[in-house]
Amino acid sequence: MAASAPPDLHLETRCINVIRGLAIDAVQKANSGHPGMPMGAAPMAHALWTRHLRHNPRNPKWFNRDRFILSAGHGSMLLYALLHLTGYDLSLNDLKQFRQFGSRTPGHPENVATPGVEMATGPLGQGVSTAVGMAIAEAHLAAVFNRPDFPIVDHYTYGICSDGDLMEGIAQEACSLAGHLRLGKLIFLYDDNNITIDGRTDLAYTEDVTKKFEALGWQVLACDGMDIEAVDRCLTEAKANTERPTLIRARTIIGFGSPNRADTSKAHGEPLGADEVRLTKQALGLPEDEFYAPDEVVGYYRGAITDGGVAESGWIDLLSRYAQAFPDEAVRFHKALAGDVSEAVAALPTLSDKVATRAASGVMVNAVAPHLTGFLGGGADLTGNVNVVQKDGGVFSATNRAGRTIHYGVREHAMMAAVNGITLHGAARGFGGTFLIFSDYCKPSVRLAALMETPSIFVFTHDSIGLGEDGPTHQPVEQIAGLRAIPNLNVFRPADGHETAAAWKVALESKHTPTALILSRQALPCITPAFEGSHPAELGGYILRDVENPEVVLVGSGSELQLALAAADQMELRARVVSLPSWLLFERQDAEYRESVLPKGVPTVSVEAASTFGWGRYAQAHVGLDRFGASAPGDVNFRELGITAEAVVAAAKSLL
Amino acid sequence: MAASAPPDLHLETRCINVIRGLAIDAVQKANSGHPGMPMGAAPMAHALWTRHLRHNPRNPKWFNRDRFILSAGHGSMLLYALLHLTGYDLSLNDLKQFRQFGSRTPGHPENVATPGVEMATGPLGQGVSTAVGMAIAEAHLAAVFNRPDFPIVDHYTYGICSDGDLMEGIAQEACSLAGHLRLGKLIFLYDDNNITIDGRTDLAYTEDVTKKFEALGWQVLACDGMDIEAVDRCLTEAKANTERPTLIRARTIIGFGSPNRADTSKAHGEPLGADEVRLTKQALGLPEDEFYAPDEVVGYYRGAITDGGVAESGWIDLLSRYAQAFPDEAVRFHKALAGDVSEAVAALPTLSDKVATRAASGVMVNAVAPHLTGFLGGGADLTGNVNVVQKDGGVFSATNRAGRTIHYGVREHAMMAAVNGITLHGAARGFGGTFLIFSDYCKPSVRLAALMETPSIFVFTHDSIGLGEDGPTHQPVEQIAGLRAIPNLNVFRPADGHETAAAWKVALESKHTPTALILSRQALPCITPAFEGSHPAELGGYILRDVENPEVVLVGSGSELQLALAAADQMELRARVVSLPSWLLFERQDAEYRESVLPKGVPTVSVEAASTFGWGRYAQAHVGLDRFGASAPGDVNFRELGITAEAVVAAAKSLL
Repeated sequence: MAASAPPDLHLETRCINVIRGLAIDAVQKANSGHPGMPMGAAPMAHALWTRHLRHNPRNPKWFNRDRFILSAGHGSMLLYALLHLTGYDLSLNDLKQFRQFGSRTPGHPENVATPGVEMATGPLGQGVSTAVGMAIAEAHLAAVFNRPDFPIVDHYTYGICSDGDLMEGIAQEACSLAGHLRLGKLIFLYDDNNITIDGRTDLAYTEDVTKKFEALGWQVLACDGMDIEAVDRCLTEAKANTERPTLIRARTIIGFGSPNRADTSKAHGEPLGADEVRLTKQALGLPEDEFYAPDEVVGYYRGAITDGGVAESGWIDLLSRYAQAFPDEAVRFHKALAGDVSEAVAALPTLSDKVATRAASGVMVNAVAPHLTGFLGGGADLTGNVNVVQKDGGVFSATNRAGRTIHYGVREHAMMAAVNGITLHGAARGFGGTFLIFSDYCKPSVRLAALMETPSIFVFTHDSIGLGEDGPTHQPVEQIAGLRAIPNLNVFRPADGHETAAAWKVALESKHTPTALILSRQALPCITPAFEGSHPAELGGYILRDVENPEVVLVGSGSELQLALAAADQMELRARVVSLPSWLLFERQDAEYRESVLPKGVPTVSVEAASTFGWGRYAQAHVGLDRFGASAPGDVNFRELGITAEAVVAAAKSLL
Repeated sequence: MAASAPPDLHLETRCINVIRGLAIDAVQKANSGHPGMPMGAAPMAHALWTRHLRHNPRNPKWFNRDRFILSAGHGSMLLYALLHLTGYDLSLNDLKQFRQFGSRTPGHPENVATPGVEMATGPLGQGVSTAVGMAIAEAHLAAVFNRPDFPIVDHYTYGICSDGDLMEGIAQEACSLAGHLRLGKLIFLYDDNNITIDGRTDLAYTEDVTKKFEALGWQVLACDGMDIEAVDRCLTEAKANTERPTLIRARTIIGFGSPNRADTSKAHGEPLGADEVRLTKQALGLPEDEFYAPDEVVGYYRGAITDGGVAESGWIDLLSRYAQAFPDEAVRFHKALAGDVSEAVAALPTLSDKVATRAASGVMVNAVAPHLTGFLGGGADLTGNVNVVQKDGGVFSATNRAGRTIHYGVREHAMMAAVNGITLHGAARGFGGTFLIFSDYCKPSVRLAALMETPSIFVFTHDSIGLGEDGPTHQPVEQIAGLRAIPNLNVFRPADGHETAAAWKVALESKHTPTALILSRQALPCITPAFEGSHPAELGGYILRDVENPEVVLVGSGSELQLALAAADQMELRARVVSLPSWLLFERQDAEYRESVLPKGVPTVSVEAASTFGWGRYAQAHVGLDRFGASAPGDVNFRELGITAEAVVAAAKSLL
């Protein structure tokens, strides 16, 4: 088809072809990557970025920008080309470093690497689902802050997704939720190219996508994705419908322009090769120059800088008039923008009752709620059980955008992605809760939060065989270990109400590290020092009870810390008891402190009602659970499965 | 509504009420559980079990039985009541032990605990998705073995699912796949009761379920689920349509019969309480007796024994006539039934080339394929990359049921559940492949395989930063640790072609333990002893290279074993090198052997391009990766991130 391209191409067509050229050159130079998607999706991206997307390349963090999510993250060069061309701090040299160690242009987009990238994408479905969270945050903040004639929060959330995204379960959960919540300012362009890695999409995917999305409550539009006018019209129509999210099925040709690879799976995931690059450039009317970006094209795209500056200036002006008209709201708004949690943290109470840590967590949520704007929590149909409800917050819904509790339905994976989206959005803080066992259902979103350095808060309750009769399908064993192994995830398992307050303090104050709170179903006695604004648990680990010249150290977390204390009481050895609720925080302390708590050379026993996997780092003997649990009352489980003070005593003896 | 129940109830109504009575009594006695679902779903279950389900209570493993999956596993008492009443080896005393330690009636169904339970359910969506695998196995085996007038493989796969099941992403993946594959003998009753734990379903779930399932290619029927005649008619219609799977939307009333709790979320997850139990029994016309099961009701249900015996006898007769008409096929069929893998294992080749272990795995798959009936593999749109294709096996599809490679689409979670279903079905063996990073997307299915003691084979490739340029979103770090922590999962990370053969041998011969193969993207030199029918790697760990009186032990797995060898060459210390591809197998060896390989007291260094989490069990110093990876060529990553022979040498020195 390229052969029929007119010789005198319209400037916008030349713009699009420059994007294609940059993409194929970068992939060719890196000798790896995905050229086909940018080549096919360049027209729709061009239409969106030049005619609709409101953003400011000079301030990628401008709060009221439209969000753009490239859910099909393998097409990263499309995004990098647009960022470069529209004037973000991403140079042509950066593009030439595509997929090289330490560059700003990694293989899949990463928000921590590249200005203008909203989130890390690549694991399919995450982009779509995180975008839902961003749209939730926008709708909520608009309801909270906007006043007639003062739409200070007012933007769209756009994305480009692939068939791979839409096949993933997480995206189906998220799209069902978005339809239910009627997130009308969420707009996805579906790069409908009929090609997957394995071959034609119909090898595995023959559902009626339009009918399905209509069933989910979406507006579905369709167009020729290679025609920027058609895409433009669909985007206009999508924006006009604020009652329903919109999916635009944009029919595209993967690898467009490549004479021998267009419309085949060969175009998807490998360089075109030098010969085909040459032929493709010929077909697209591009010169052979690598990384060709002529001034007229750059100039055309750089209009975004002017437009963005005007847009942001207008918003700043609006904001200052807002501050005059609504001074209190403006203060709250700026605090939310700054992520100021000081008042919230100051409100954390001293909770000395015998309570389940999940209940203690609920107390903390409700204590901080009045002091946190944009605090949006929810549960996956266990909202009450996991204690994430803000009692005075109302329910966020299609008809009540000011509500702060979200009923996510039985959609754990999409929930935690939405939590990430809410938190990434800014001026909002997302948290979500489910049983710890179901952390398995949402682990990719938890990991992505850690990779994105986003301080999401994941509430995981019913954290052991203590959950009792629901049995081994519902009892976590290896989940804590699996979560602890994730880099930059703060897994915090408090032992009582005081440590739960400390956990929430750390979680709220975190700027770059997500927190997974690991909470008990069953009530736990209060055994640690009173939380009064601070607590030693914030160090990750500390000596709870000491003796002179300890012969043995007993280290535990959560509900088993009481067993360590009881064992110390029972045994004849001089035993120190250490509380270690957070390995990550403990390992951030200096070596001297760590050694002062867990001295080398003193025999150490760990106790935790979970897999002993990983505890070899701190202890030489372990009381734990290296098998599946059982359906029985929780106390029976502890006894029958050998998680007892007596077992701790025996383990200590075995070391000496 | 219970007040309007006629005084002289029809026998079948009395039968249904007896199920309800058993469920509420068991939950009341256990003081925990889910009475509402059995009370509402008893009529549809009754209709299915007495009028359609072909099964033999005296032989729960009869091969040609219809499969029944209670995907809504929290309604376990419905299943237990039916198993008891129809004559399975599950006594009234067993029902009285509901949710007690070690009983045959755990809180959620477990195939390993209870005769007649096909799989463990409870984690929502797993039942639906595993059932899809069972239906795939049936369709495939029927195509392979059936001959005109000899339908030796011919059964339906039934299930009961809840709205919670259908909200889960995994189920949406599975249902999309089932529609695509036109699995016409898959029939699900949807217990459409409008209630979830959080309250009314419309709090979170307002999609048009009928329209959606039609879009997925299903037949959708609807009826009053409280009317057994209506359910019966739908089941008949569902069975008649063998072109499409069927969803029967059966409108039910949760907690039916309970005057004060019916149709509320209070009926879902807690005992009714003594008073309400009494009122409910009155309303249902039941006496107050606990665990009431009168002879006429038991007798009615026990007809299943006679019917089942007749059905199985008829099948055995068919099978013996089949053996006369098709003796070769009959031999193959019986081998498949027995799970005989001896010929397949004997066909595993000696592969001494420098190859990626993913490629070596592909060689093994194709070597054993001709010797394994029902060997059904597939990939999640990376089918070629993960080397799961049986080159002469064809593609399993709606039009080619004899095909052995399944294109699962980008649906990792449903894929691995289907792998479990294929394997649980019997006479078939399922395996599925994706990148190791995406083990996170399917972990709940992997865990369930381990809990169900099902020898599924999970192929996870691209196992480290060695995958290179795709970057940290695609590079596993903590995944190996997370998988190793799962009880009863054999995580096997071979170092070369020889160990890959050993891995497949162990995986194929396993009867009760699933295997996760962890395979490299990049080519690896051949460094371990030749596989010639056996290999020391089958012990999990072994001495690869020894010295007299080792001063240090270097232990590694997979692609890093070569670094341990190189380090041993480079260092001045006397170093033993240990290959440890499978911790699970190694820990199944006796203490003497383990000590002979990894002696206590000798400083030990681990090397693995993954999180060091867990390695404290075996080593005191570690070369590994406790951060996210990077987008760069694989060899650059190893160098820049410090996974090198030099680092191993330095770590060894640090210990001395």
